[in-house]
Amino acid sequence: MEAEVAAGSPGDRLSSVRELMARHQAGPATVQRAIAALVARGVVEARPGRGTFVAPRVAPAAADTSWQTVALGARAIDADALETLLRPPAEDAFVLSSGYLPADLQPTAALGAALARAARRPGAWDRVPPEGIAPLRAYFAAEVGAAPGEVLICPGGQAGLAACLRGLAAPGAPVVVEAPTYLGALAAARAQGLVPVPVPADERGIRPDLLADALERSGARLVYLQPVFANPHGATLDNARRAAVLEVVRAAGAFLIEDDAFRELAIATAPPPLFGEDPDGHVVHVRSLTKPAAPGLRISAVIARGPALARLRAARIVEDLYVPGPMQEAALELVGTPAWRAHLRRLRRVLRERRDALATAWGQPVRLPQGGMNLWVALEPGIDDRDVAQRAAAAGVIVSPGRPFFAGEPPGPFLRLTYASEPPDRLATAVERLRPLLKP
Amino acid sequence: MEAEVAAGSPGDRLSSVRELMARHQAGPATVQRAIAALVARGVVEARPGRGTFVAPRVAPAAADTSWQTVALGARAIDADALETLLRPPAEDAFVLSSGYLPADLQPTAALGAALARAARRPGAWDRVPPEGIAPLRAYFAAEVGAAPGEVLICPGGQAGLAACLRGLAAPGAPVVVEAPTYLGALAAARAQGLVPVPVPADERGIRPDLLADALERSGARLVYLQPVFANPHGATLDNARRAAVLEVVRAAGAFLIEDDAFRELAIATAPPPLFGEDPDGHVVHVRSLTKPAAPGLRISAVIARGPALARLRAARIVEDLYVPGPMQEAALELVGTPAWRAHLRRLRRVLRERRDALATAWGQPVRLPQGGMNLWVALEPGIDDRDVAQRAAAAGVIVSPGRPFFAGEPPGPFLRLTYASEPPDRLATAVERLRPLLKP
Repeated sequence: MEAEVAAGSPGDRLSSVRELMARHQAGPATVQRAIAALVARGVVEARPGRGTFVAPRVAPAAADTSWQTVALGARAIDADALETLLRPPAEDAFVLSSGYLPADLQPTAALGAALARAARRPGAWDRVPPEGIAPLRAYFAAEVGAAPGEVLICPGGQAGLAACLRGLAAPGAPVVVEAPTYLGALAAARAQGLVPVPVPADERGIRPDLLADALERSGARLVYLQPVFANPHGATLDNARRAAVLEVVRAAGAFLIEDDAFRELAIATAPPPLFGEDPDGHVVHVRSLTKPAAPGLRISAVIARGPALARLRAARIVEDLYVPGPMQEAALELVGTPAWRAHLRRLRRVLRERRDALATAWGQPVRLPQGGMNLWVALEPGIDDRDVAQRAAAAGVIVSPGRPFFAGEPPGPFLRLTYASEPPDRLATAVERLRPLLKP
Repeated sequence: MEAEVAAGSPGDRLSSVRELMARHQAGPATVQRAIAALVARGVVEARPGRGTFVAPRVAPAAADTSWQTVALGARAIDADALETLLRPPAEDAFVLSSGYLPADLQPTAALGAALARAARRPGAWDRVPPEGIAPLRAYFAAEVGAAPGEVLICPGGQAGLAACLRGLAAPGAPVVVEAPTYLGALAAARAQGLVPVPVPADERGIRPDLLADALERSGARLVYLQPVFANPHGATLDNARRAAVLEVVRAAGAFLIEDDAFRELAIATAPPPLFGEDPDGHVVHVRSLTKPAAPGLRISAVIARGPALARLRAARIVEDLYVPGPMQEAALELVGTPAWRAHLRRLRRVLRERRDALATAWGQPVRLPQGGMNLWVALEPGIDDRDVAQRAAAAGVIVSPGRPFFAGEPPGPFLRLTYASEPPDRLATAVERLRPLLKP
């Protein structure tokens, strides 16, 4: 019938129901339903007692979406910097900017087998508890020394962070962050109407004295931190500062989001989570399997105590109800296999090799991170890091400029150079290509 | 070593590095690392030149999380009503309250096979574009008559709604909703600091005259609507009102979130999406595969035009970056199989049967929805719907009270009775059990 309408002119009478039944070998109900659908779409008109006719065609006016600019207002939600990190690089580019393991370091065979099994399990597609399946919660709980009931399963680390930022502060509230810090946390905070308050981090991690000052000055009740192998600056909070940070946070009656994304990407052993040193529920721990496994395994955990746990649970439910069962089952099977331990051991070896290769190639003195994926390198004053990154991309080398990692003004130009994604020889070649771009 | 520490008393000297190397057949680096980890956890103390000793045990003080009540403040995020819908009912209960198809109506075999294949495909676990994989976007685009570039893939309908509410209005802004409306939308709106503005819906859908009034009075630039087989009241916006609603929304310079969750659960043919009648980007369409497939297939699409599309894309990225590739591939394979069309045909037949069985059993005059999953029944004035629901649950029949579906005061007591989840004979038995509870 569509063809008949398309071939006809407005006002043309279409075939009768009887003719259509004969032509399409269909019953009267089927034909009537097809006609009703065309009437509903406005392409034919039914004139009772006379038949159906091709409806007048109205030429569509040119679309005008300019009213949206007023309705939307200015941007608080800005994913530009985050999206730069997600953009797949050109096929032959040297990738020194990535938040994920490269394909050759992902345990894809184990993952594929686990998900294939999970997909066919009876009940696999039914709903699961909003807080996650019990054995996966127990796994994360054991990793951190928490109770399984304190764990909420989320679809990846970013979703865990977003839930914490939504649940633990109201729109308009301040949130204290390291300078520099993970730019995805900055974007999520701003999208929820929070106001980032930056506090400098050095080679020993965030400065507790300035953290205390920032909490007092801003009245913030929320701090976001990566205490171990921080992204981008690589530092691990040292023992003296761990105690001081906890003390400052407690004194302020504040929450501390402990983003522990890189623990499994350790080269040296990491200190234990702050969560274990805080009985009173100040620390909310976020842990992800995406970083040590593969970008497609979007499974993370938020671990919290006290009324905050209930608030975070609600913040997760209103966003997307729950994480699909098969993905949770696959994650659970993966971390239980001997292949997972072997994968982590291999990772540690390969990451050390790549870190050292990049540091050697870089040549200048550089702080060696004890885990994570990145070197954080200072450029000579006067150089524009965004300009360097742009020219590097043109030369086939993808690096991240330091600026978007700062909520305020950076103290100088930096680059974040990911060492995880390329083998040693390619890291060396990439640095050779970068070198001429680094002169002021 | 842990055992040695546990067995010892504070101040006891532990075995030397040499002894530990011999006992555990380990190298010096391994032993040193293990000691360092215990020192970091504070369970042993290293005294340089003298060895390692069991650290003094500090009895943990009782946890006190009461400071959180002040830090968290009052609840804007409340998932209680939504969670009631998600709670798995008792094994033998009669389920007349559910947002999902029961297990026997889910195409689990086709889903399992599709996901198993997707999980093992090369590159399956790598990152995918934040907006979703191209062929799945094309599928949703074709369903609605949009361009593939206008489609954003989301992890389920609730996530699509949450992104729209976050992207299209700022915290504190009003959002116009039907009364009654989907309570998950109410919860998501409130969680993001939006203020619901209710407008009555009757058997022809939302009242355009009162919608105009509400938009003018509140200054809202955002409307949330289920124009087809609305949850919970079942009405489909009729032709005259479709035009009027679009006109009112256009005149107000507002966005209309068209939540089209139930289109595939049609008994009679649904009118086409409003999206197709709006060239200027007022209508943002939300479509989900979760309802017609299974709760574990959390795949939906948000479809929008103009600058709003970019804003929504950013709102999605800051929340959870992207939907895992294997799930998108599985959804794509599912909707392309002949089994999918057969499944939808079977659904239509079974849902009609169950709707009619429930309406017949109910006995009282009731509005017959042309699709969806629910009957919306008015109770006699003076009855407390929440009380009825509670007593019904005690009698093994799970129903939803009407009250949580209203942003304001309900005009009277209602029940939402899901007909999708039980076969006709069990629906009849359930109504028999309900009947004695319905007297004032």
